[in-house]
Amino acid sequence: MNGPVSALDPAVAARLRRSSDGLVAAIVQEAGTGDVLMLAWMDDEALHRTLTSGRATYWSRSRQEYWVKGATSGHHQYVKSVSLDCDGDALLVTVEQVGAACHTGTHTCFSDNLPVTDGEGARA
Amino acid sequence: MNGPVSALDPAVAARLRRSSDGLVAAIVQEAGTGDVLMLAWMDDEALHRTLTSGRATYWSRSRQEYWVKGATSGHHQYVKSVSLDCDGDALLVTVEQVGAACHTGTHTCFSDNLPVTDGEGARA
Repeated sequence: MNGPVSALDPAVAARLRRSSDGLVAAIVQEAGTGDVLMLAWMDDEALHRTLTSGRATYWSRSRQEYWVKGATSGHHQYVKSVSLDCDGDALLVTVEQVGAACHTGTHTCFSDNLPVTDGEGARA
Repeated sequence: MNGPVSALDPAVAARLRRSSDGLVAAIVQEAGTGDVLMLAWMDDEALHRTLTSGRATYWSRSRQEYWVKGATSGHHQYVKSVSLDCDGDALLVTVEQVGAACHTGTHTCFSDNLPVTDGEGARA
């Protein structure tokens, strides 16, 4: 496992199936609206901090450092719940989002709609 | 780029930032309820098929093959919209889900809640 030794509960750590760089995907969903805001990454320590601090904390792959969402932008994410998926490689984090979730200033990071052209398989 | 040459629209393909194995993450959300159902992976061709067939199609990392959701289970996902995130490495796919999204038979793959213990950083 990459990264420093983490204080993450060993019972939780044992259920994670990490990528080759020691990470699991974290889907961030806004509580209340249900809007999917962003996708980020966590290692064991980021998950530990998220679960115990009440503040969404990620591992930045580009900066190679921990990243408390909102620490510089003020766009905090207060953690409401965290769930692990059936095969242990993805988390669903529901948050109370302050301000814009996306660094571009938009509410969510998913604002680029791709054209869907229904084929024969589509339901009418 | 890994995998076969894809018929994906080059304008879309140019915006993807793929992992080292040629994939982007696909967050699957149920239209209507807003429930996040699962996380899967797509290469260019899986995205092309998803956008043009109306049926959610993924790349199975474990089986190393394309996977039309519901083809064997009957738990089809009819695609309503697909959005790309700000840095091009994640997709949000909204679907009409037939039956259980999870292979374990549950509605979503995220049914394993982890304990959140609010710390000083939490909002009251």
